[in-house]
Amino acid sequence: MIELVLVGIGTGNPDHLTLQAIKALNAADLILVPRKGETKADLAELRRAICREVVTNPATRIVEFDLPERDPSIEDYRARVESWHDAIARIWGQEIDAALGRSGRVALLVWGDPSLYDSTLRIAERVGRGRALRVRVIPGITSLQALTAAHAIPINQIGAPFLVTTGRRLRDEGWPDGVDTLAIMLDGECSFRTIDPTGVTIWWGAYLGMEDEIILSGPLAEIADQIVRTRQEARAQHGWIMDIYILRRA
Amino acid sequence: MIELVLVGIGTGNPDHLTLQAIKALNAADLILVPRKGETKADLAELRRAICREVVTNPATRIVEFDLPERDPSIEDYRARVESWHDAIARIWGQEIDAALGRSGRVALLVWGDPSLYDSTLRIAERVGRGRALRVRVIPGITSLQALTAAHAIPINQIGAPFLVTTGRRLRDEGWPDGVDTLAIMLDGECSFRTIDPTGVTIWWGAYLGMEDEIILSGPLAEIADQIVRTRQEARAQHGWIMDIYILRRA
Ligand SMILES: C[S@@+](CC[C@H](N)C(=O)[O-])C[C@H]1O[C@@H](n2cnc3c(N)ncnc32)[C@H](O)[C@@H]1O
Ligand SMILES: C[S@@+](CC[C@H](N)C(=O)[O-])C[C@H]1O[C@@H](n2cnc3c(N)ncnc32)[C@H](O)[C@@H]1O
Repeated sequence: MIELVLVGIGTGNPDHLTLQAIKALNAADLILVPRKGETKADLAELRRAICREVVTNPATRIVEFDLPERDPSIEDYRARVESWHDAIARIWGQEIDAALGRSGRVALLVWGDPSLYDSTLRIAERVGRGRALRVRVIPGITSLQALTAAHAIPINQIGAPFLVTTGRRLRDEGWPDGVDTLAIMLDGECSFRTIDPTGVTIWWGAYLGMEDEIILSGPLAEIADQIVRTRQEARAQHGWIMDIYILRRA
Repeated sequence: MIELVLVGIGTGNPDHLTLQAIKALNAADLILVPRKGETKADLAELRRAICREVVTNPATRIVEFDLPERDPSIEDYRARVESWHDAIARIWGQEIDAALGRSGRVALLVWGDPSLYDSTLRIAERVGRGRALRVRVIPGITSLQALTAAHAIPINQIGAPFLVTTGRRLRDEGWPDGVDTLAIMLDGECSFRTIDPTGVTIWWGAYLGMEDEIILSGPLAEIADQIVRTRQEARAQHGWIMDIYILRRA
């Protein structure tokens, strides 16, 4: 039996690691570290640094592998992602077969928490097809928590709900009914510009947990332009950006 | 200047602690540990155990204090809670004044993450009135993450939103429009029984992260009664229960 452990590592700060994550990494026979495929080399380096710092078990092998690229010849977005996930699952499977055969523990470092807008669980499911495999998840600090912590704010108002959604949804569907707090992830386009800013407050953050963390907050009407500018400049400077924000209306 | 650090400790598993939390506790001059006021003695004991295990700095003082009770003579719910928060803030203030005077670092252990359905940030704000105080937040693993990890499931469907809300809201307002995934917290009454179960799947968990963790999942129509029974029995056995669940409709 193969145990595949998806280890949430938090969002850039190595100190986001939990004791449970450290124990899981050290209990692994094999740790698979993706070498490319994320937008930015830094993140592969962060994974390496985490392994160097916390993996003390000499029996744990750390193996890097090249993530495949998405196939641009597949036109349909969903089909393209599916085929990409298949390709990643094949590589994991090959590495597992080669290093462990039919039994052992393999760990993968997952950005933030494996449950939140992440495809690792779906890829793991594919690896399980045709193999005796058990998937285990170690939760990790999410970017949403890094955001609320950096601003020292609660995500919810007392007894009230909040919706976690994507930039695309906000753009396409506007502010949803019945909820006054939105957390927006996966937004490459400052979609907060597409809503009526009246009475809305924004708490924004980029590179959360990392050295270059930037946070801004205030009335959306007043601060939207500054966020757009700051984001543009930071992105130009670093070559990439990850950002997230909370919107709350009165 | 007083620095008040709210340290998320996760939801019952001492290994939920992050390295950042451990460092923050050891950097504190004073750690305030509430002795009562939560429904269950176990949780105070867990806080003590965490301090015993991870606080190695001999200069860090650990001080227990009795949480006040809510004043039952105040009829209005909101006013009762406000007055309770005032009373807690007064006690924190007194302990801080007595132990630190006007400068130093005080840490408080917060269940889960301080940003999620928790009043600590609101109480901290009160402590800041009339004091030079800076509040810092260390994120912690939430019960929602402990739930998704235990079930090894993603919280969201691909690119889709999810709503985090309370049992009371689900009961009073039904399934909200425009969202197919709900995470329900603070539900003392199995409010999932109040919705039409057709096509709905539930992932439920109690005592997550703890020794007595229980999880159940399946089609709501088939499994609702079993959850209600399991919850009743567990609650009778332990004298208390904390549970949370995700509902997803097709
Ligand atoms: C594919 S999702 C992964 C989320 C991750 N599993 C988590 O738990 O946060 C990527 C999105 O998360 C957010 N994100 C992740 N890390 C971030 C960081 N360090 N700072 C700001 N936003 C971040 C951004 O909204 C980004 O578009
Ligand atoms: C006052 S809220 C605090 C939430 C906490 N700040 C967090 O991050 O999870 C309490 C609610 O959290 C959920 N909860 C907290 N700990 C839990 C646990 N160990 N198992 C199941 N549910 C839990 C329950 O829904 C409970 O009603």
